[in-house]
Amino acid sequence: MQTLQSYVVGQWQAGTSAGTTLENPTTGEAVATCSTDGVDFATVVKHARDVGGPALRAMTFAERAAMLKGLSAAIHEVREELIEMGSRNGGNTRGDAKFDIDGATGTLAAYASFGKRLGDRPFLPDGDGLQLGRTARFWGQHIRVPRRGVAVHINAFNFPAWGMMEKAACALLAGVPVIEKPGAATSLIAWRIAQVIVASGLVPEGAFQFLCGSAGDLLSHLDGQDCVAFTGSAATGRIIRGNENLVANNVRVNIEADSINAAVLGPDTDSSSDTYGLFVGNVALDMCQKAGQKCTAVRRVFVPAERVEEVQADLINELARFPLGEPTEKTTRLGPVAHAAQHKDVLAGIQRLSEAADVVHGGAEPPRDGCFVQPTIMLARDSEAEVLHSLEVFGPVITIIPYDGTAENAVKLVNLGGGGLVVSAYSSDKQWSTDFVLGAAPYHGRVWMGSERMAEQALPPGMVLPNLVHGGPGRAGGGEELGALRGLDFYTQRTAIQGFKSFVDGEFGSQD
Amino acid sequence: MQTLQSYVVGQWQAGTSAGTTLENPTTGEAVATCSTDGVDFATVVKHARDVGGPALRAMTFAERAAMLKGLSAAIHEVREELIEMGSRNGGNTRGDAKFDIDGATGTLAAYASFGKRLGDRPFLPDGDGLQLGRTARFWGQHIRVPRRGVAVHINAFNFPAWGMMEKAACALLAGVPVIEKPGAATSLIAWRIAQVIVASGLVPEGAFQFLCGSAGDLLSHLDGQDCVAFTGSAATGRIIRGNENLVANNVRVNIEADSINAAVLGPDTDSSSDTYGLFVGNVALDMCQKAGQKCTAVRRVFVPAERVEEVQADLINELARFPLGEPTEKTTRLGPVAHAAQHKDVLAGIQRLSEAADVVHGGAEPPRDGCFVQPTIMLARDSEAEVLHSLEVFGPVITIIPYDGTAENAVKLVNLGGGGLVVSAYSSDKQWSTDFVLGAAPYHGRVWMGSERMAEQALPPGMVLPNLVHGGPGRAGGGEELGALRGLDFYTQRTAIQGFKSFVDGEFGSQD
Repeated sequence: MQTLQSYVVGQWQAGTSAGTTLENPTTGEAVATCSTDGVDFATVVKHARDVGGPALRAMTFAERAAMLKGLSAAIHEVREELIEMGSRNGGNTRGDAKFDIDGATGTLAAYASFGKRLGDRPFLPDGDGLQLGRTARFWGQHIRVPRRGVAVHINAFNFPAWGMMEKAACALLAGVPVIEKPGAATSLIAWRIAQVIVASGLVPEGAFQFLCGSAGDLLSHLDGQDCVAFTGSAATGRIIRGNENLVANNVRVNIEADSINAAVLGPDTDSSSDTYGLFVGNVALDMCQKAGQKCTAVRRVFVPAERVEEVQADLINELARFPLGEPTEKTTRLGPVAHAAQHKDVLAGIQRLSEAADVVHGGAEPPRDGCFVQPTIMLARDSEAEVLHSLEVFGPVITIIPYDGTAENAVKLVNLGGGGLVVSAYSSDKQWSTDFVLGAAPYHGRVWMGSERMAEQALPPGMVLPNLVHGGPGRAGGGEELGALRGLDFYTQRTAIQGFKSFVDGEFGSQD
Repeated sequence: MQTLQSYVVGQWQAGTSAGTTLENPTTGEAVATCSTDGVDFATVVKHARDVGGPALRAMTFAERAAMLKGLSAAIHEVREELIEMGSRNGGNTRGDAKFDIDGATGTLAAYASFGKRLGDRPFLPDGDGLQLGRTARFWGQHIRVPRRGVAVHINAFNFPAWGMMEKAACALLAGVPVIEKPGAATSLIAWRIAQVIVASGLVPEGAFQFLCGSAGDLLSHLDGQDCVAFTGSAATGRIIRGNENLVANNVRVNIEADSINAAVLGPDTDSSSDTYGLFVGNVALDMCQKAGQKCTAVRRVFVPAERVEEVQADLINELARFPLGEPTEKTTRLGPVAHAAQHKDVLAGIQRLSEAADVVHGGAEPPRDGCFVQPTIMLARDSEAEVLHSLEVFGPVITIIPYDGTAENAVKLVNLGGGGLVVSAYSSDKQWSTDFVLGAAPYHGRVWMGSERMAEQALPPGMVLPNLVHGGPGRAGGGEELGALRGLDFYTQRTAIQGFKSFVDGEFGSQD
């Protein structure tokens, strides 16, 4: 069996124990093992700070952007191999694997494009210069400079390619070395990408390190110039945010946790409209794509009470377009969930939702051997039941929740989720839509509005785009990533420079 | 004796116990007592959310800006009364009290000015609109909306007026109700300002509440829409950041902690230059203004090794311009520290610095009865000694630390402080200055450069300005406040809106 190694301090290193066994969720077969036992995490951090950081900062923004473009191309070259691995280790259908891998290369290419215009100075001007004294002689200018630490990225199991590379793209462009730790259970793709990155020679030594296995005591070696970005469960997010060393040293922490994302059918959206078709299609897509294992996937579907039966029937119909089966088969559009623990969690989650909702399609009975879950639609008995708004079942499962059709009621119920990554709503009524956006916005990182005239062109709400922010308040972790150059803020220090105008403006001004 | 009350849930409420006794640090006399015993903190939070928030958000940005302008004027009207209180409760000289009070009214006026241009929509556009699809039909726009929670402000004892109002200005302009908690030991001024604010009728009920005493279990009632901004010691900052409820709910936390701020004399700055005069004057001012109790005050003074004796002598001379005495006396420019515990800490701090530095002026012997401290200059025996770079003595105390005159060595030693609010350097050498700025910037919120041609016009580095950011990484707390409209970011949620262009751009675009 294959042993996946970590790339630390300039070399590939195998763990001293067997560690985690990676499995094929379709067959249960063992695929590989990985472990970081024996890795000296203090040395890994020091290597990033002492070797990777200076090398990266010696490059200009434009050079680092070119590096990202090169990485995008290098990863794209092994796309077919990665697709196969996604199926073998993560149960991805071909479409699912492409979504992850092309998300990685696309985000790298996007950041290459954002970065190429940033010039060749070792900082970014932030806003306009400011007169501070009685005359313009005493002047101020904010700049952003790369922090002098390391970025630790603790990534989720569901997007081993995209999740790792979207974080790495922002940090590397900013000039901060990374230590990437994928979710161990699905780390095969991440490991192969790490191999490609190292072999490419594009990234300076020390600027990219890769931990295949546990993060050990890594967090205890960080200080106030370092940062930790985590994507994963709310429970793990809490442990990281509360970590004693991170708290004591004011280490920057960004948490992107799961959330109970919602979709809302507006009362004006009748069943003959393109908007309705978009609604049904997007909800079914979110259920089945990656077997529902997207942090942005819809979990709660709010429907005007009198239209629940219609929506339920149409969703069940739509699900017929997503055949469940072996992920390697061409016709399959719904594979297994990623691993056995995840499978157990999803089935248990359906049971817990049953406290407040009835199964109207699918259910907790596995449809076949392996980590498969039936696409499952629940119907809420009580629209305000706590479990529906707090329990994320990370699989192909939604709950239809009736509401009274008003934007006010939709906002109230949606916001019971306590903060989400994205909410989508489908309406062509301007007043309803405006009221909904303003009511939902404080609780969400993205608000996606489906309407008649954009239906044909819209990318679905579950898709994270590099030029829009990704993250959400409260339950969603309180973090923010991406958003084009906004994504560099986390990795840079904003500093106000004050002094004689000709010096401050000349050396640090925006030069516009 | 006067009993200071809290203003909560629409009424003034006295504590059910005596609580903290406020003293006059010059005489030791008791001035007042305050306590929040008996306050129901859950109700206070609910009142802010249910009553204050909606009322504040019903106002436009321009209306809220006008409210801040009115508050500035109302507080200015009682300026003489506040100055007297600053002396009686905080030991402020007249100049010290004015610095605090005029800082409060000036910051309110500045935010009134920043806010009046923000228009009358209930959100702020953030950046340009973005084409997201194949054509412009599918469009994106980031906006910022007020969070739907409450802003808890835990303020420091040293700036009861300015500290409270700079935080309140940002939150109230953003549309977020505040709960203000001053440092209890010097809360007399804050309490009087709270009276003025409530009596003015300018702030909607529930949008301003005031806790005079302990914060009790306030933090345990907050959730993901709320935020906590704290200014004070690193130790208390750590307790707040690690608070279990704040961690569990991803409550936003901003920490502005003390830091071991540095000033650096550049090797080119000879003693006949205006820049040298500015250096000597600013260091002495930072030592004596507010008796050294500014979070931005210089603690470490880096001097080229061969010039240590000269600088030492000139600083001692300059200190003669700051006579120590009764704060109420006109000639006094150095009053006592604010309270007895603080006095004890400063004297003990001088002792601890003695482990690595010699007293060359002043010392730990109190010069008279009351909380007075001699202005004290220490000279480092070992420039890298840990205590010099980690212990903040929050009083009129500096340590002169020799360095080799290079920007590289200055950067290295300055950054041993682990992150600061501000660093100042004095040089008219462009290359030295540029190298210093770029080396120090990652570790500081502000870098202040003194040079020949700005000397007459420069505001001192210890002065926080509303249009520049205030905060610093690592040891300084990792926070950021002010910076003109940047100060609203903490109180707002950034949300990406996606949808049909004519809707998204029409309703949420920047309208430029």
